[in-house]
Amino acid sequence: MVQKSTSTAGLRGQVAGETALCTVGVSGSGLTYCGYDVADLAANATFEEVAFLLQHGELPSQSELDTFKQNLKQQRELPVALREILERIPKTAHPMDVMRTGCSALGVLQPEQSFAEQDEHIVNMLAKFPGIMNYWYHFHFSNKKIDTDSNADSIAEHFLTLLSQTKPSELHINAMQVSLILYAEHEFNASTFASRVAASTLTDIYSAVTGAIGTLRGPLHGGANEAAMALISSFTDPDDAEKGLMAMLAAKDKIMGFGHAVYRTSDPRSVVIQEWAKKISEEVGDTRLYDISERCEKVMWREKELFPNADFYHASAYHHMGIPTDLFTPIFVMSRVAGWTAHIKEQRANNRIIRPNADYIGEEPRKYQPISER
Amino acid sequence: MVQKSTSTAGLRGQVAGETALCTVGVSGSGLTYCGYDVADLAANATFEEVAFLLQHGELPSQSELDTFKQNLKQQRELPVALREILERIPKTAHPMDVMRTGCSALGVLQPEQSFAEQDEHIVNMLAKFPGIMNYWYHFHFSNKKIDTDSNADSIAEHFLTLLSQTKPSELHINAMQVSLILYAEHEFNASTFASRVAASTLTDIYSAVTGAIGTLRGPLHGGANEAAMALISSFTDPDDAEKGLMAMLAAKDKIMGFGHAVYRTSDPRSVVIQEWAKKISEEVGDTRLYDISERCEKVMWREKELFPNADFYHASAYHHMGIPTDLFTPIFVMSRVAGWTAHIKEQRANNRIIRPNADYIGEEPRKYQPISER
Ligand SMILES: CC(C)(COP(=O)(O)OP(=O)(O)OC[C@H]1O[C@@H](n2cnc3c(N)ncnc32)[C@H](O)[C@@H]1OP(=O)(O)O)[C@@H](O)C(=O)NCCC(=O)NCCS
Ligand SMILES: CC(C)(COP(=O)(O)OP(=O)(O)OC[C@H]1O[C@@H](n2cnc3c(N)ncnc32)[C@H](O)[C@@H]1OP(=O)(O)O)[C@@H](O)C(=O)NCCC(=O)NCCS
Repeated sequence: MVQKSTSTAGLRGQVAGETALCTVGVSGSGLTYCGYDVADLAANATFEEVAFLLQHGELPSQSELDTFKQNLKQQRELPVALREILERIPKTAHPMDVMRTGCSALGVLQPEQSFAEQDEHIVNMLAKFPGIMNYWYHFHFSNKKIDTDSNADSIAEHFLTLLSQTKPSELHINAMQVSLILYAEHEFNASTFASRVAASTLTDIYSAVTGAIGTLRGPLHGGANEAAMALISSFTDPDDAEKGLMAMLAAKDKIMGFGHAVYRTSDPRSVVIQEWAKKISEEVGDTRLYDISERCEKVMWREKELFPNADFYHASAYHHMGIPTDLFTPIFVMSRVAGWTAHIKEQRANNRIIRPNADYIGEEPRKYQPISER
Repeated sequence: MVQKSTSTAGLRGQVAGETALCTVGVSGSGLTYCGYDVADLAANATFEEVAFLLQHGELPSQSELDTFKQNLKQQRELPVALREILERIPKTAHPMDVMRTGCSALGVLQPEQSFAEQDEHIVNMLAKFPGIMNYWYHFHFSNKKIDTDSNADSIAEHFLTLLSQTKPSELHINAMQVSLILYAEHEFNASTFASRVAASTLTDIYSAVTGAIGTLRGPLHGGANEAAMALISSFTDPDDAEKGLMAMLAAKDKIMGFGHAVYRTSDPRSVVIQEWAKKISEEVGDTRLYDISERCEKVMWREKELFPNADFYHASAYHHMGIPTDLFTPIFVMSRVAGWTAHIKEQRANNRIIRPNADYIGEEPRKYQPISER
C-alpha cells in the first residue's frame, strides 16, 4: 500500500487562508460548493446555476438565472483584434497556450478598470472562453473563421455547437453540463491558489486568471485528462492495459489520472463522470476505452491503493463525445474560471498580500571577486 | 509606532519551501543573492553577471560571461507574428498587460518543448522583453515600427537604446545596471511564489513567467514604483509633501513605496537606489522630486516607522532618466525574470505540487432546492 508522504513540502496539509466556497475531503461530504454536495448539483443543476452559486453564494432564483444567462449570451462575440491575434497563433500551438494568450489578450482589449466591474468581467470570460478556443481551432483545422456567437441556451451547448458546428444531442449537452459542474471549483488547488496569490497584489482579474490557466496547464494538474487519454488509448484491451500498467508501476512511472493531493480513498467527482462515460460509450456502441479504464482502476487500487481522480474517466467520455484530446484541458478552463474568479473575489474582499518565507539552503555570505580572479 | 501584525494571513512568516537563491532580512546581511550582498553586487557587477549567478549559482568566468552575452544579443529580434500581435494591442493598454500578453505570445510562438531546453528559453526572455515593451511603445507613441535588434553591449544599454533611439549616456547605463541588479531577485515575494506554484504542476516556463508578470502588476507589489511616481509628482515641494502625507496618513491611506512584508527597519535596496536618484537629479540640475522624496522618507519614519522600499527612490531616478512612468513596472519585469526563472528551475529540480489547504468558513451542508422553490 502507498505510504502517503507526511512531509509538508508543497504546503501539503498547511492552511494558507480561509474560504467559504468549497470543502474537499471533509468526512461525510466529499466535495461541496457553498454547502451543496457536488453529486447533488451534478444530478440536478445546470452549470450556469453552479457558476452563479459560486459567484454569489446562493443558487439563483428563476429571474436571477434568466438575467445571468442573458448576460452570458450577449457577450459571446470576440472583438476583432482578439480574432486577429488568435489567427497569428500557429496550428501547432498547445491549446492551453492559446487559452492563456487569449485570456491575456482579452484583458488587454477589455481591461478591468476597477474592482467594481469585476462581475461583468467574470461574465465576459465565461461567455468568451468557448469562442476563443473554437475560433483558433476552426481557423486552423477547418480553414474557417467561425462566428463565435450562437443561440445555444447554455455554455455547455454553446461550446459543443461551436466545436461541431451543428446542434449537439441532448445526451452530449447533459454530459457536458455535468462535466463543467464537476470541474468548476476545488478549494486551494494549485491553479486556484496561484490566482489568489496574484489577486493578493490587487492586480486585475485577467492577470489572475491568465496565471491560473498557465498553472492548470501542467501535467500534474489539469493536463492529466489529456495524459489519461494518451494512456488508455495506448492499450488494445483490458488485459493489455493490465500488463502495461504493471510494467509502468514496476518502472515507477506516474500514472496520470490517479491519486490526489487531498482525497485519500476516492475522488467524489470520479464516480459521477464514470457513470456518464459508461452511458456515452454505450450510446456510441464502443465500450473498449471504457472497459480499459475500468481495468486500470482495478489494477491501480489493487497494486497501489490509488483511485481515479476527476480526470481519468473524463478521457473516454470526452473522446466519445467527439472532442479532440487537445481540447480536454481547455474545457477544464471554461469551467474552472467560475471557481477561480469566485476565489479572486473572496481574496479581494479580505486581502493581505500572500508572501511566505523560504528556508535558506544556499551559500554562506561571500565577497564579490573581480572577473579576472574567477 | 506601527504594530507589525502577528497574524499569519498571507502566509506571513510561514515557510513555504527551500531556496538556495536568496536571503531577505537575515540579520547582518539585508539581502543576498547566492551568498553575495546585493550592495556588493550593485557596486561591482553588471546585470548579466547577476543573471548568470542566479541561473548557475556562481558568478561567470570571463569566457562564460562572453558566451552568455553573445547568446543574449543574438535573440533580440522579435518573430513577425509577435510584432503583429503587439500591433493589435491598443495605445491605451496598461504596459504590464502588454508584457503579460507579449510573454504569453512568445511562449506560444517559441514554446518550451522540454525542460532540457529551459536555459535557452530563459535567455530568450531576457533578450526579448526590452524589445516587446519598446516595439509596442514606439508603434503607438512615435508611430514607428522599430527594429528591436541593437548592438548594445548589455541589457541595460539595449533597453535605453530602444527607448530613446539614440546612444544613452554612461551615467544612465550604469544607473540602469544597478536598478536591474536590485530588482533581479527577492526570495518568495508574491510574483516569484506564483511562478513556483505554476512550475510545481510541471507546466512550461512561459506559463510560469506569464503568471508572475500578472502578479507583479498589482499596486501592492511591482506596481508600487509607478504609484510612488504619482505620489511625489503630486507635490510641489517638500513642505507641500509633508502636508499632503500627513493628510493621507490621517485618512489611513496606504503610501505606495513604503513598508515591506519582511524587512522591519529598512530595505537595503533603497539605500543604493537613493544614491543614484540623487546623482541623476543633480546631473539634470533638478532636485525637486528628489528633495520631495527625502522629505517623504523623513515624515513616514517619524509618523509610522515606515521606511522606503526598493520602489520609492526608483521613481525619481527613472523619471530623470527620461523613462515614461508607465514603463517603470515593465523594467522590473525585465530584471525579475532572472529571479523568477531561477526559482522555476529550483522548483523543477526538487518538485512537489504546491497545494495547500483552506480553513472552511462557509455554509453547512444543505440540499439542492428546485428553482421553482427558491
Ligand atoms: C495528484 C498528485 C499530483 C498528488 O501529489 P502528492 O500529494 O504529492 O502525492 P502523494 O504525496 O499523495 O503521493 C504519495 C505516493 O504515491 C505516489 N503516487 C501518487 N500518485 C501516483 C500516480 N498517479 N501514479 C503512481 N504513483 C503515484 C507518489 O509517487 C508517492 O510515492 P512515494 O512516496 O514513493 O514518492 C499525484 O497523485 C499525481 O501526480 N497524480 C497524477 C497526475 C494527476 O492525475 N493529476 C490530476 C490531479 S486532479
Ligand atoms: C509591502 C506591503 C504590501 C507589506 O504588507 P504587510 O506585510 O501585510 O504589511 P504589515 O503587516 O507589515 O503592515 C503593518 C501595518 O502597517 C501599515 N502599513 C504598511 N505599509 C504601509 C504603507 N505603505 N502606508 C501606510 N501604512 C502602511 C499596514 O496598514 C498595517 O497597519 P494595520 O496593522 O493598522 O492594518 C505593505 O507595506 C504595502 O502595502 N506597502 C505599499 C505598497 C508597496 O510599496 N509595495 C512594494 C513592496 S516592495
